[in-house]
Order: sequence, then C-alpha cells, then structure tokens
Amino acid sequence: MSVTYDYIRDPQEIYRQSFAQIQAAADLSALPADIADVAIRIIHACGMPEVLDELAWTNDAAAKGRAALKAGAPIIADCRMAMDGIIRNRLPADNAVLCPLTDERVPDLALEIGNTRSAAAVELWREHLEGAVVVIGNAPTALFHLLEILHDGAPKPSLILGFPVGFVGAAESKEALIEANIGVPYMTLRGRRGGSAIASAALNAVAKDNQ
Amino acid sequence: MSVTYDYIRDPQEIYRQSFAQIQAAADLSALPADIADVAIRIIHACGMPEVLDELAWTNDAAAKGRAALKAGAPIIADCRMAMDGIIRNRLPADNAVLCPLTDERVPDLALEIGNTRSAAAVELWREHLEGAVVVIGNAPTALFHLLEILHDGAPKPSLILGFPVGFVGAAESKEALIEANIGVPYMTLRGRRGGSAIASAALNAVAKDNQ
Repeated sequence: MSVTYDYIRDPQEIYRQSFAQIQAAADLSALPADIADVAIRIIHACGMPEVLDELAWTNDAAAKGRAALKAGAPIIADCRMAMDGIIRNRLPADNAVLCPLTDERVPDLALEIGNTRSAAAVELWREHLEGAVVVIGNAPTALFHLLEILHDGAPKPSLILGFPVGFVGAAESKEALIEANIGVPYMTLRGRRGGSAIASAALNAVAKDNQ
Repeated sequence: MSVTYDYIRDPQEIYRQSFAQIQAAADLSALPADIADVAIRIIHACGMPEVLDELAWTNDAAAKGRAALKAGAPIIADCRMAMDGIIRNRLPADNAVLCPLTDERVPDLALEIGNTRSAAAVELWREHLEGAVVVIGNAPTALFHLLEILHDGAPKPSLILGFPVGFVGAAESKEALIEANIGVPYMTLRGRRGGSAIASAALNAVAKDNQ
C-alpha cells in the first residue's frame, strides 16, 4: 500500500517555520540581539523553548567569540559529537577544530591527575587555549577542570560555550562557570540540560556573521 | 589563585550515581526490563527523567534489535552526530555503521524526489535496509520518508530507533511511526524532543548485552 504523508519537504520552509515557531514560543526581548540569535539556535537544536529560562551568558559572549573566530582562533571541543556538530563551512577563517579526548596520552594522564579522561584531555587543551573558543557538550568534569586550570593561570579562551549534560556535576559545573569570575565570556544553561547538539548549535550561531 | 572544586572525579562513581539518580527520579516499573535499560540510557543522555512520559515502544524492540546486531546487521543513521555517538566496541559483531547523508548522489536525489537531503539519503538506505537497525536522531523528513518507502514495499529493518527533534514535523513523524502498523519494532519519544545523543544512547543500550 502506497502512503504519502503530509509534511513539509522544502528545507528552507522547514527552517522558516521552525524559527517562526521558536520566536512565537520564546520571549527573546530581554536578550541582546546577538545572544538572542544563539538562543534561537539552541532552542532549535533541542526542540525546547523552555530552556530559555535556564540560559545564562555574559553580554560580550557572542561578539567576543565571533571576533576570535574571525581572527583565526581554534575551537576546542570536549567530545567528538560536539566537534562533529560544527558546520565547518560556516567558520570564518577555516578555523582548526580540536578534540584531544582520543589522544593516546589521555588514559595515563587521567590516572595521573585522578580524574576522568574528559578532564585529562583538558590538560592537552593548554597549548591551544589562548584566545580559543571552547565548546563543552558532554562532560561536567571537563568544565570543572577547565575552571581549575584557568584559576591556576592557564591562558584564557575567548569564549566558553559550556553545556555539559546530566545528573552528576552538570548543574554544579555550570554554576561554577557562572560564579567563576575569571573574566572569560561564556554561555551556558543552568541545570541538567545541555549536550553536544546544543553546544555545537551555539558555536554555529556564534560563527555565523549576521552583520 | 588556585581553586579546587568539590566534584566526583571517578568515572565509575559518576556512572553509579547517575543511574541511581535516574532510577530514583523515573518510575520504570511499568516497562519490560530490556526496554527499561534503554529508557535509562535515554534519560542519561539528556538529563531529563520526564522524557519517560513520552517514550513509546513495541515490546520486542530491544530484543529484536539486539538479535539483529548479534547476527551482524548493519546500523543506518540519518546524521553524522548520531553515527558518532555509537560506541563501536560495544557492537556485538563489528557491525557496519552507515550514514549515506554525505553521499555525493544525495543533492541530486533531493531535487529529484522533491524532499530534503536527509530524506533523499533514505533512498540510499534501501539496499542495506533488510534487517538493519535504523537510528534517526535529527530529521523528521528522514523518518517520514522511511515510512513511505516501507509502506511502498522496501525491505523491513529489524528496529527503528526514531528520535528526530524539533518544531516542524518531529512530533508528527514520530506519531506516524507509532501508527504506521508496518510490523517493524520501534522505540521513539512522542513530541518535539529527541536528537542524536538520545538516538545513539538508545542504540548503545540495545547493543549492550545484559544477559
């Protein structure tokens, strides 16, 4: 039996209606315009307008991240899914996208520092961290350890897109980011929600030049 | 200033506490045991116990999917993020993981069938579809078009893990899956929520042999 469903098949129309629905469902009027652009992409990635209530940011986050990318800054991701969600042809300077999690040194480093492999990989971020755009979509321990090395004097990134997800440490690591007072622009979602799709959507929005 | 945060650094303990929190927050007693295992992984991936209310499944979904994987069935994913979330060393038969979305024929196929590239890629699934495990973590149009070709007589997969996400067509495509009555086991989430992390977590849970 042949069945044809009634659904929208035109990608541009799908985008148009998606963003219209998001703007109808989420009151973005309190956000700076460039932060609202990122918020829309985050909501689009997860299908949940209600995450807007959990969004936290510094006003300079999108501008600083975009300027850094234009100047050629590398992007550092905590996991492969976040890395792979990044739309490469939207990056303004063919920016490097790094994810040292699978580096062969990571398992030994994790034992050495007594932390997860995600946190151990952050040790390998140091040499790329100056001015970089950091994208965390999975591991609370990566965000916690990043904050630790920043407090300890590691080079500062231009932007932290901090979206670890889950039950143990995610909410706490994001609160720590908000309260860290280290002079690094950030965007994050309070609470347990986050993930690679949200993190890479935020990066893609920051990378896109709307000006 | 050196700052050390108080957080759990041991990966086994993070897992243990995560799953304990999930089991405390979500009442899984109404689910078959092997479906509950998948539900736990889905909740773990998104940090939201409340998605349990949206879970829909056929009772044979996990068993049929696992048996297919053990017998060497390929896995077909609609997007790269879902593909990359699959833990390869957990697959029981070194199963192939296919994602034809980036096949060079896809853009022309999309024009030809008047649908998205995600749906056009489904045309390239046909030759691998018999007995395969399908993982959809992004595109409602992929799920709709898969149902269309199945109604039209395409070979049946062993399992559809259907988790497209978003505002346009996601809820509708998943309702269509639930109502399709095509004799293919499935798991899905009603509504707008879904995504690659959930889809690949479901696949990983199906692949893991708890027996």
